Amino acid sequence: MYREKIKVLDCTIRDGGLINDHFFEDKFVREVYKAISASGVDYMEIGYKASKSLMSADKFGKWKFCDEDVIKRATEGIESNTKLSVMVDIGRVEKDDIKPKKDSIIDMIRVAAYVKDIDKAIDLVNDFADKGYETTVNIMSISTAIESEIDEALDQLEKESKASVIYIVDSFGSLYADTVDFLVEKGKKYIKTKELGFHAHNNLQLAFGNTIQAIIDGCNYLDATIYGIGRGAGNCPLELLMGFLKNPKFDIRPVLDVISKEFLPLREKIEWGYIIPYAITGMFNEHPRSAIAFRKTPSKDDYKKFFESMSPIEVE
Amino acid sequence: MYREKIKVLDCTIRDGGLINDHFFEDKFVREVYKAISASGVDYMEIGYKASKSLMSADKFGKWKFCDEDVIKRATEGIESNTKLSVMVDIGRVEKDDIKPKKDSIIDMIRVAAYVKDIDKAIDLVNDFADKGYETTVNIMSISTAIESEIDEALDQLEKESKASVIYIVDSFGSLYADTVDFLVEKGKKYIKTKELGFHAHNNLQLAFGNTIQAIIDGCNYLDATIYGIGRGAGNCPLELLMGFLKNPKFDIRPVLDVISKEFLPLREKIEWGYIIPYAITGMFNEHPRSAIAFRKTPSKDDYKKFFESMSPIEVE
Repeated sequence: MYREKIKVLDCTIRDGGLINDHFFEDKFVREVYKAISASGVDYMEIGYKASKSLMSADKFGKWKFCDEDVIKRATEGIESNTKLSVMVDIGRVEKDDIKPKKDSIIDMIRVAAYVKDIDKAIDLVNDFADKGYETTVNIMSISTAIESEIDEALDQLEKESKASVIYIVDSFGSLYADTVDFLVEKGKKYIKTKELGFHAHNNLQLAFGNTIQAIIDGCNYLDATIYGIGRGAGNCPLELLMGFLKNPKFDIRPVLDVISKEFLPLREKIEWGYIIPYAITGMFNEHPRSAIAFRKTPSKDDYKKFFESMSPIEVE
Repeated sequence: MYREKIKVLDCTIRDGGLINDHFFEDKFVREVYKAISASGVDYMEIGYKASKSLMSADKFGKWKFCDEDVIKRATEGIESNTKLSVMVDIGRVEKDDIKPKKDSIIDMIRVAAYVKDIDKAIDLVNDFADKGYETTVNIMSISTAIESEIDEALDQLEKESKASVIYIVDSFGSLYADTVDFLVEKGKKYIKTKELGFHAHNNLQLAFGNTIQAIIDGCNYLDATIYGIGRGAGNCPLELLMGFLKNPKFDIRPVLDVISKEFLPLREKIEWGYIIPYAITGMFNEHPRSAIAFRKTPSKDDYKKFFESMSPIEVE
């Protein structure tokens, strides 16, 4: 697959940070930035931009806050054409935390929002766009949103927001190719002046397959992470996406190399990937939080027990 | 997805046996048979039927030969509606090894064949059908066959074979959803009086997604293995397929339970799954043998080195 407009965004440090409360070591982030830059990936999302007045700074690592000097230290001296991105959550950032683009090393700011928070997302993203950043709105947990609300959110985003990309986010890793197709086609119906993006999760081993479906349907912004790192089951593996995309700007080898050197040792310390409780929350179209909690109990590998605890009994 | 004609075939012991030369312990095979039977899976493929005159019996475990008394010991006393299947390879079995169905515990015999061996496959499968078995022909390595040869093979299989199912086998785990679609549509063009089946490999984390594509396209026989066990990257995970299929005859819980109890400990001893060299052979549409060999060298985790060793240089 080769389409010139396709942009790949690596969110290894940002989504991976959800596993370890953003406590990545500087050396690790530098090695990732080096690999991403050498491989020709378009964007690297280096963390969250949270406000220290809203989120306790001693509970999280520095990649939750992404101070300018922290980013600079991790990236300086490395040759790169990769743009830097940060993500913000509704209610965890204040506009004053984001300085004008001319004073920042950051290129893109992505606003993650549930459908119910679309008005707040538009307010934030327009402020960031006015400050000179590339911007996106990422519609989270779209697999549990009611269709009429998705329609309304997409309509608003097209008409009222200055975001240049609208992302469909399969937060629970519950979508199949046909539901990806349904949602991207819906996206295309409303989003006419912006690009569409897709962010997958790998609960059902469908993150890569669903990303391909999104490409076929016309999404040009694609999220992936090195070795699929990310909360729970993780994300679309960047190395697989690069093997699929035929754009000559990409070189898979630096990504393979950093997996060998940095991600195999890390995987011994923190877990992500195909772990059955995450597959089960995917099947039930639920947030992985119950699986994450279950993995911290003594019966973490009793998969039948977890399945039965998820089965809807006595719900009306 | 619910379609009454869909049949699921578990080939855990047969394909998994390619990792450990078919040396599964009796207890393990019994536990698998118990779980498969309790979960309502239609078929369980319990091994290969190889001829001891052609294959050295001391180099392989008993599941390479599947003597009737061996199968009986592993299955007796377990309540089951699951049919038993064995696979044969061209050149590794003699017709005399297969007794009439009335004298056998086996229900189905599947003939694995490359396109080049279709005539031999038809000769064998017709003999087995005449002996009273359900039969299939599984077209291996279809991703490297030339299109005109696939056409000819399918035409012959429809006209000359007594097999009731023709399988498309993605031996190298190299197919994407669109190439699955292409091959199944081609299959439907020729195969009018038999069912189509699909056997995936998981090199690119697409085994489950591709199996769904095959279902959508009309395949009614679907191979899967518990926890995705199988040579190299493994197969379509049975538990994911059961989560997708809505047929009320299936119960996922015994499969989840046997993963906890038998497959997690086994995975500590033998390896399969998402391991980068297998992803790389998938990208290159090559047999996993080079990756299997590489995994036995001291540089087994130097993925960049392996990728570069696969890159086609000086080939004309």
